[in-house]
Amino acid sequence: MNLARKGELALVNDIRARFSSSLPRGGTGIGDDAAIMAPGPGKLLATVDAMVEGVHFDLALITPRQLGCKLVAVNVSDIYAMGGRPDYLFLSMALPPRTRTSFIDKFFDGIEEGLHSHGTVLAGGDLSSSPSGVTLSATVTGHALKPVKRSGAKVGHGIFVTGTLGDSACGLELLKRIGRPVNLEKGRQTPLSWKIMGPLIKKHLVPEPRPLGNGALKEVSSMMDLSDGLLLDLWRLCSESGTGAVLHEKAIPVSFEMRTAAEYLGIDPLELALAGGEDYVILFTSPRKKVRGAVRIGDVASGGYKLIEMSGRERRLPPSGYAHFNGK
Amino acid sequence: MNLARKGELALVNDIRARFSSSLPRGGTGIGDDAAIMAPGPGKLLATVDAMVEGVHFDLALITPRQLGCKLVAVNVSDIYAMGGRPDYLFLSMALPPRTRTSFIDKFFDGIEEGLHSHGTVLAGGDLSSSPSGVTLSATVTGHALKPVKRSGAKVGHGIFVTGTLGDSACGLELLKRIGRPVNLEKGRQTPLSWKIMGPLIKKHLVPEPRPLGNGALKEVSSMMDLSDGLLLDLWRLCSESGTGAVLHEKAIPVSFEMRTAAEYLGIDPLELALAGGEDYVILFTSPRKKVRGAVRIGDVASGGYKLIEMSGRERRLPPSGYAHFNGK
Repeated sequence: MNLARKGELALVNDIRARFSSSLPRGGTGIGDDAAIMAPGPGKLLATVDAMVEGVHFDLALITPRQLGCKLVAVNVSDIYAMGGRPDYLFLSMALPPRTRTSFIDKFFDGIEEGLHSHGTVLAGGDLSSSPSGVTLSATVTGHALKPVKRSGAKVGHGIFVTGTLGDSACGLELLKRIGRPVNLEKGRQTPLSWKIMGPLIKKHLVPEPRPLGNGALKEVSSMMDLSDGLLLDLWRLCSESGTGAVLHEKAIPVSFEMRTAAEYLGIDPLELALAGGEDYVILFTSPRKKVRGAVRIGDVASGGYKLIEMSGRERRLPPSGYAHFNGK
Repeated sequence: MNLARKGELALVNDIRARFSSSLPRGGTGIGDDAAIMAPGPGKLLATVDAMVEGVHFDLALITPRQLGCKLVAVNVSDIYAMGGRPDYLFLSMALPPRTRTSFIDKFFDGIEEGLHSHGTVLAGGDLSSSPSGVTLSATVTGHALKPVKRSGAKVGHGIFVTGTLGDSACGLELLKRIGRPVNLEKGRQTPLSWKIMGPLIKKHLVPEPRPLGNGALKEVSSMMDLSDGLLLDLWRLCSESGTGAVLHEKAIPVSFEMRTAAEYLGIDPLELALAGGEDYVILFTSPRKKVRGAVRIGDVASGGYKLIEMSGRERRLPPSGYAHFNGK
């Protein structure tokens, strides 16, 4: 059955029935003009992130369940990036009338999985038909006792990331070669071993953002999540803080799988690590020399934007990465 | 200049510069991973409403400024419908790369005008390219000391609306005949006098939702805003409350302009009033016989869904109105 046959009201009823058991503590969810929220303690946070078919995803390469998971992940990642915890998700969907109800079911399986792994609930949304492709937008609200902004970096602080870089961008390149959706639960006949490709593709399809631990959070001076690639995002953080940065190539964390796959693909792993997007790891600065669970990749400087290469040579960095509309 | 030339980063900078002066009391707005909010007292509310080109609007009939105004209006209307006041708006936009920057500027003029008239600020959003048309989604958060839900209607309570019905639907029909955007500030050569058409078209293009006053709010038992037409929306309220309803045709408030224009168009004004959408007036129930600023159109009943016609004859009502995907 497709949506044109099922209709908006029946679909909203299904969604409501599925998510009503997860209703928030003291709040109300789907089914009224607005949700009543009961957020956690501290400051209240909110973020919005959209995913547009043909721009952020290709239904020839991602399953509906993976899409649901990813939509939740990219949004909670922004709450984690402020040092917060997510409370509620609001979902805005524009879907072509031809969309199969089985697609919606599986998409909501993914939403549910994502909500569950981040302790979040669906509290409302909007459903509309779309004359062309699928457009998704989610708003996530959360709370933080002490939100960490992008603007607090100070000269001399270390620059840290909480995971390897470039895996997701490399996974996307692999997926494009495979040319169809991949079942992440099963290994399969692939040009490289699944042991190499699986983790990379998974990072692209279902990123798993994680918050920085409370211990590390105490001495963080600025923070954001990496979604558009290290170079562009770190440049944004530096702009907000009024600083420059020096990165050390030898310190950039790159996974064995990414290095292997990049070699197979003929792509420079450093380029993927510096400019590849959708890492959804946390970038932060701290006056501390070492932070548990994070890798120090460079230092906040008073000006300039540079990479010290393996050879010791300095290279000026461009603030490049993924930007919509390819503007210049 | 179009967006492809201007680029995402430059556009975000423009938006940020324009809206940074309206930064919230104690919160932070655009420019970080998430906004930090400082909402008003009471319970926290949130609602999401999308507007999709070719579904909710036709750029051949609405100016970008009107579109911005309307996007704010339809969202704050949902906060008013809970007895709340809006605090923050988050805007998610997917725009074709060919979009002119002048379009964006005027659209944001409308957003600004809407925010200003409802005491709300833009606190964040997402900007993406779109492979087809314009897709807009806004999330509005607000607060209410005592939120009013749809589910509190009791048998014997009166059913009230806070304005005339069907004006917006009639205005849309007029606009379709005119076939191009209309400058609401200037009268123009039109099939009917502008004195008749202007107010109707204005209600469609730039609805002006208003909250129920605090006095009336105290004795309201259930409430929602009318966006999909009285019949469908009242049916939703009754479903949530587990009741039926009896409406009185002679009590349904219809404007002189709508009655005149409907006659010209050959449409039954009662049909427009009952099933026309986008009124953005408030529908509520109350144990009181009269409520200042509202018209009593019927009574909550234990079951059934009926209209008493002018003649005194009873007619069973269908729960019809605007639903996406035309499902059945």
